[in-house]
Amino acid sequence: MRLAVVGAGAVGRAVADLAGEYGHDVVALADSSSAAVGEGVDVEAALATKDDTGRVGEHDPEAALEADYDVLVEATPTTLGSAEPGFGHVVSALERDRHVVLANKGPVAERYDDVRAAERESAGSVRFEATVGGAIPVLSTIADAGPGQVTAARGVLNGTANFILTRMAAEGLDYEHVLAEAQDLGVAEADPSFDVEGTDAALKCVILANVLGDGGYTLDDADVTGITDVPGEALELAAEDGRTIRLIGEVVGDRVRVGPRLIPEHGTLAVSGTRNIVQLETNHAGRLNVSGRGAGGPETATAVFSDVGRLPPLE
Amino acid sequence: MRLAVVGAGAVGRAVADLAGEYGHDVVALADSSSAAVGEGVDVEAALATKDDTGRVGEHDPEAALEADYDVLVEATPTTLGSAEPGFGHVVSALERDRHVVLANKGPVAERYDDVRAAERESAGSVRFEATVGGAIPVLSTIADAGPGQVTAARGVLNGTANFILTRMAAEGLDYEHVLAEAQDLGVAEADPSFDVEGTDAALKCVILANVLGDGGYTLDDADVTGITDVPGEALELAAEDGRTIRLIGEVVGDRVRVGPRLIPEHGTLAVSGTRNIVQLETNHAGRLNVSGRGAGGPETATAVFSDVGRLPPLE
Repeated sequence: MRLAVVGAGAVGRAVADLAGEYGHDVVALADSSSAAVGEGVDVEAALATKDDTGRVGEHDPEAALEADYDVLVEATPTTLGSAEPGFGHVVSALERDRHVVLANKGPVAERYDDVRAAERESAGSVRFEATVGGAIPVLSTIADAGPGQVTAARGVLNGTANFILTRMAAEGLDYEHVLAEAQDLGVAEADPSFDVEGTDAALKCVILANVLGDGGYTLDDADVTGITDVPGEALELAAEDGRTIRLIGEVVGDRVRVGPRLIPEHGTLAVSGTRNIVQLETNHAGRLNVSGRGAGGPETATAVFSDVGRLPPLE
Repeated sequence: MRLAVVGAGAVGRAVADLAGEYGHDVVALADSSSAAVGEGVDVEAALATKDDTGRVGEHDPEAALEADYDVLVEATPTTLGSAEPGFGHVVSALERDRHVVLANKGPVAERYDDVRAAERESAGSVRFEATVGGAIPVLSTIADAGPGQVTAARGVLNGTANFILTRMAAEGLDYEHVLAEAQDLGVAEADPSFDVEGTDAALKCVILANVLGDGGYTLDDADVTGITDVPGEALELAAEDGRTIRLIGEVVGDRVRVGPRLIPEHGTLAVSGTRNIVQLETNHAGRLNVSGRGAGGPETATAVFSDVGRLPPLE
């Protein structure tokens, strides 16, 4: 397939870089201010140019949306509310009867019903495995089981928060101390609020709720508490009882909630460090667990390629 | 899709029973001595007839293979070597340009290359998610990642053996004692050798090896040791070191092996009771884990329906 990759952060770069290995061609690569466009974009050169000059190419970024592609890979930063410019990119591709593969959570967390409406009018399809759990095959597992067969989903969906709580429990340190450590390691951002306040995990849960319930949810529907007020003493008390505290997201019935929860310290949900896990409850197959790396450029790119591989050829 | 279900054991019965819920019709249901055939087989009646008389229907079993179906669900007992009669059923369906979904491990463990050869000559496709890990989406996860991207697979693939070792470790009991308990619970068969000697786990690993390596493996290629000689003392010693012993199957490079292994007692591979887990090592996504119920009629049926759902419509 010919890919137009919009977004040249960690995920966009990895998708562009690995596309050849998966048998695909990059026909456009755009960052926020420029684009490289052509039959076969020289990805290595474009990324080197970006490293040197801050721009991937000579064209305006819109040129990527106008290129001759089969699949738009939307990997611009997640935005809330109107989910722009990501949502507009999705619509642009669908109006051209092209496919969209999202790594950007915004359109399917905040504008899910609008995305599906645009998809119904298009020959193209929208897939978004990369938006939930990085490399972990969450949405494809739900799709294969049949969304109507899955009665609940819960899990650890933010690696930054999980890393911090894992370290607090392991070392008996307080939140501020471990946050600083996480920032030094690059596991937490300079402004970590999206992760530690639970917003990132909540967006993923909202996407799960939309998939399981066929739409109707936005971030406003989620009940969200982050980890910023979890005291070290709470983890010590939990440990005396064979338990620990992790930031757990849950979708059951029409409730979507994220918050610190006590869980068995050696239980399945107690994944360590930055790993993620999703547990699905099903009608006939009991509980299924899928876990792995929930973030990272190459990791998330594998989910993008998994989606590309499941798209039907276009006319 | 119209399903011809061959095999009326736990899995075949569950597939026939749940087909309607998944939107499919059962046009034939066969056990070893008879078949019920028709536009819409009354599955409830056929299964009741089997309970009363030992036969599902009035026709000869071959009538199921001649019925007007889209997908043959092959759920007869796994056989080794020539993998008959299962292999013959696969060929019969493919020669009629129909799809096959296998729950029977024999054809894809012992005759994989022959199955793929027959598939290449057919408009029908062969899928076999249910042969590895019951309800757990192992093969679809490998397919979505791209088999060339998966460098190793390992896991707990036999619930009977895992249950026995879990109980030996938990209770400090010896093998013979726990085996008897497992048989009382119906977790182990009267003749448990297929499970406790590692053959069942080995067949699943051989299937994984065939998928990852594009064929070439049979049970003879697997290095197999079961759990019958694991002494209770070994588990006690392991526990003193924070470890336990489980029957682990592994496919890495061109090696396929099954045997009792020391693993961290609270690690990811240490699933409890009859649960199964498969761990995949990948090029760009690190380690992925999928776990859940590895056996059971309804559980395995969900994997069959997952495969049916991914089959293309036939002309």
